[in-house]
Amino acid sequence: MTAAAADVVALLRADLGERVDTTLAERERARADKSGHAAAGIPLAVVHAESVADVQTVLRIASATRTPVVTRGAGTGLAGGANAGEGEIALSLRRMDRLLEVRPDDLLAVVEPGILNGDLNAALAVHDLWWAPDPASRAISTVGGNIATGAGGLLCAKYGVVRDAVLGVDLVLADGRLLHLGHRTVKGVTGLDLTSLVIGSEGVLGVVVGATLKLRRLVAGEVCTLTAVFPDVRTAARASAAVTASGAQPAIMELMDAAALAAVHDLLSLARPAPGAAQLTLQTDGPAAVAEAAAIAEVLRTAGGTVAISHDREEGERLLAIRRAMHPAMERLGTTLIEDVSVPRSALPAMFDEIARVEREHGLTIPTVAHAGDGNLHPNFIFDAAPGAAGAVEVPPHIWEAADDLFRAALRLGGTLTGEHGVGVLKRRWLVDELGDDQWELQRQVARVFDPLGILNPGKVFAAPR
Amino acid sequence: MTAAAADVVALLRADLGERVDTTLAERERARADKSGHAAAGIPLAVVHAESVADVQTVLRIASATRTPVVTRGAGTGLAGGANAGEGEIALSLRRMDRLLEVRPDDLLAVVEPGILNGDLNAALAVHDLWWAPDPASRAISTVGGNIATGAGGLLCAKYGVVRDAVLGVDLVLADGRLLHLGHRTVKGVTGLDLTSLVIGSEGVLGVVVGATLKLRRLVAGEVCTLTAVFPDVRTAARASAAVTASGAQPAIMELMDAAALAAVHDLLSLARPAPGAAQLTLQTDGPAAVAEAAAIAEVLRTAGGTVAISHDREEGERLLAIRRAMHPAMERLGTTLIEDVSVPRSALPAMFDEIARVEREHGLTIPTVAHAGDGNLHPNFIFDAAPGAAGAVEVPPHIWEAADDLFRAALRLGGTLTGEHGVGVLKRRWLVDELGDDQWELQRQVARVFDPLGILNPGKVFAAPR
Repeated sequence: MTAAAADVVALLRADLGERVDTTLAERERARADKSGHAAAGIPLAVVHAESVADVQTVLRIASATRTPVVTRGAGTGLAGGANAGEGEIALSLRRMDRLLEVRPDDLLAVVEPGILNGDLNAALAVHDLWWAPDPASRAISTVGGNIATGAGGLLCAKYGVVRDAVLGVDLVLADGRLLHLGHRTVKGVTGLDLTSLVIGSEGVLGVVVGATLKLRRLVAGEVCTLTAVFPDVRTAARASAAVTASGAQPAIMELMDAAALAAVHDLLSLARPAPGAAQLTLQTDGPAAVAEAAAIAEVLRTAGGTVAISHDREEGERLLAIRRAMHPAMERLGTTLIEDVSVPRSALPAMFDEIARVEREHGLTIPTVAHAGDGNLHPNFIFDAAPGAAGAVEVPPHIWEAADDLFRAALRLGGTLTGEHGVGVLKRRWLVDELGDDQWELQRQVARVFDPLGILNPGKVFAAPR
Repeated sequence: MTAAAADVVALLRADLGERVDTTLAERERARADKSGHAAAGIPLAVVHAESVADVQTVLRIASATRTPVVTRGAGTGLAGGANAGEGEIALSLRRMDRLLEVRPDDLLAVVEPGILNGDLNAALAVHDLWWAPDPASRAISTVGGNIATGAGGLLCAKYGVVRDAVLGVDLVLADGRLLHLGHRTVKGVTGLDLTSLVIGSEGVLGVVVGATLKLRRLVAGEVCTLTAVFPDVRTAARASAAVTASGAQPAIMELMDAAALAAVHDLLSLARPAPGAAQLTLQTDGPAAVAEAAAIAEVLRTAGGTVAISHDREEGERLLAIRRAMHPAMERLGTTLIEDVSVPRSALPAMFDEIARVEREHGLTIPTVAHAGDGNLHPNFIFDAAPGAAGAVEVPPHIWEAADDLFRAALRLGGTLTGEHGVGVLKRRWLVDELGDDQWELQRQVARVFDPLGILNPGKVFAAPR
């Protein structure tokens, strides 16, 4: 039984006062994320939680009134996972942004979920520490969002993903109870690893209201940056696979295909690259950075690349800025559906062949960047947005057909649908293809243990039409 | 409804023939693990599975007849988690020991669960690769057992635990269905991370019949080994915390207290150490090994240690052998209850104070070693074994009282009950103290989703009297 919308808002406001925002502008904002897609309809209210108790209050009211809750951080998601729509409460944790504790001696920090990844790392740098997960959105995305999506980034092959960098989370369940999951210790195997289960669970198990993060010391020594230009993307992909196979471990290895490179050069007013040219950008760090860069340069040259090495940190940042400008460059071309398939690293060249085939067969250009060091690709499908029902942006059917073709190719190559962006709404209809019926149903049942009423982020992840 | 024991054995034998072993000697062996403790009663049979299909057959028969199944690897557990007793089927995976695939280019391997950790690493070394988890039992423990317990070891602070080194597992559910969990890719966030949930789940969620492992390149360069002797254990613990706080990252940092050191020296016929003396043994590796060893030596000397450095790999192995001889040295002293608490690294000195207090107050000597690099301690409670009901070894009440005192001290210091051995039967009564009632119940419910009939390793982990 759903209470009338007005009643729910009144209950929220009675307990949370001004933290309940019902202005149209704020509710409109909560409908969308950085995927460019928006929920149908508009949420009841946006609650700006300022404490764990606030979150518990929202969940208790939501449970009592059977009202769906969509938890949000900074709204930088790329799968629509935090988009709130008709009849839903948007629960924003962005104001819960305190760094509660830093322990250099134990290499851990305790944070609230709304702290920006970039702000956290700025604060940690003072202690000669960092939190390794570095999604491209790090300047604008929250740690809580990074945890909810199991975010990756550029440094994952060498420094790991979010799953490798979280010791514990505090979780508010759908009924408002608070659980402390995980440990403050490096090792800990007491019972089931619910911390890992929450990482990447996209808001369907509970609300992450705090996290104990595993930190690293800042890496001392030189940073070397290499760029290598190749005549075509397949050669570049083969070169990146050769670097991995050589045993070298760059901190970063990014690949941009010709269309991606051209778009970014255009955005940044750089010289136009040669037609068809693709580029690898790599960084090495740590005590062997210089020697490793030299060895990698040799592999890249043997693979047909034109290589430049810089030993200057700032020059390196400028070179990487080209890669980091990908998202704004794509936004200038139209509405984008940013895909996120991941394949074993040896399959990168074959995956680029598949992308070329999909381009040919579907008559599209699909500018693609890849975190080549870990096999994660971001093909960008670009289209003219046609507003759908209630103003929601809808991906045209011919784009979904091409994306479907691409997903199935990645799965055939031993890959996965989403490496780091999550399932959200945009990929839920393929989830069962990857998991299989039995695992899909098991996962749904596990989620139901945490949220028996199904009020946490309904319509996301597991809500596909079967 | 439980079928008669004879019927269950007949059903197993009809499908699995000679792989069903009902000899008394084999069933006796399946009652116990390396903890020195044994289940009450004797299992119905030991099934030596040779394939995934064999495991599925056992589970189907077990489900149909409501017969409990206890999965075993090499029986090297230290918490009684794989001990099979009255009315149970012991399902041994030891014969499923093939290395199915090694991909140096993708840094992964696919294995059956019964392969020994040491055998796997010997096979990987040919490819210049290794699987980092290195429990002290690595020569005799299986990869499947390492996964089931979420094993740790000596190298965890630098190279991670099992959770960091598994990409996917194949799991047979209680009803015999086979699920493929996880990925072959570095990144992957499709749905809930059930792979991590299975790691450390001690046989209560399903039977791990295969695993895709994340590998590392063998670390090139020198290995430096340091030993540092301190007048007492607290000074040694303070020194280890100072090493971590200094920003150095040794690959190994092991601490032995006076009683542990004396027992091992006695076993190995080495010169008797000075009364009260405690020792740290450290290794550095990688391109900066020599410089790091020199910096660490300085920290250790400042902290009051007498330091020796060796740059010889074989000499280093000899020095570490002293640490590795701990378990046999303890076995000579009597029956041991090996504890496994873990605390934040800065709390190591305080934890040693607590151990000294427990020794005083309970009139015991508790020889202790610690993986000081990650804060994991193994206090050894030694006693004269008194056989209990049906020949089961029972820990005397006064030992449990002292252990209880120790556990609570670890929890007060922000620590955990078990860093790497698991809960099994020996620690199940404290599980709820660490998890709290709400999380304990939630974990039980999650387990029930996987195993609705409760036939997987019943009586372990969650079976504590409340």
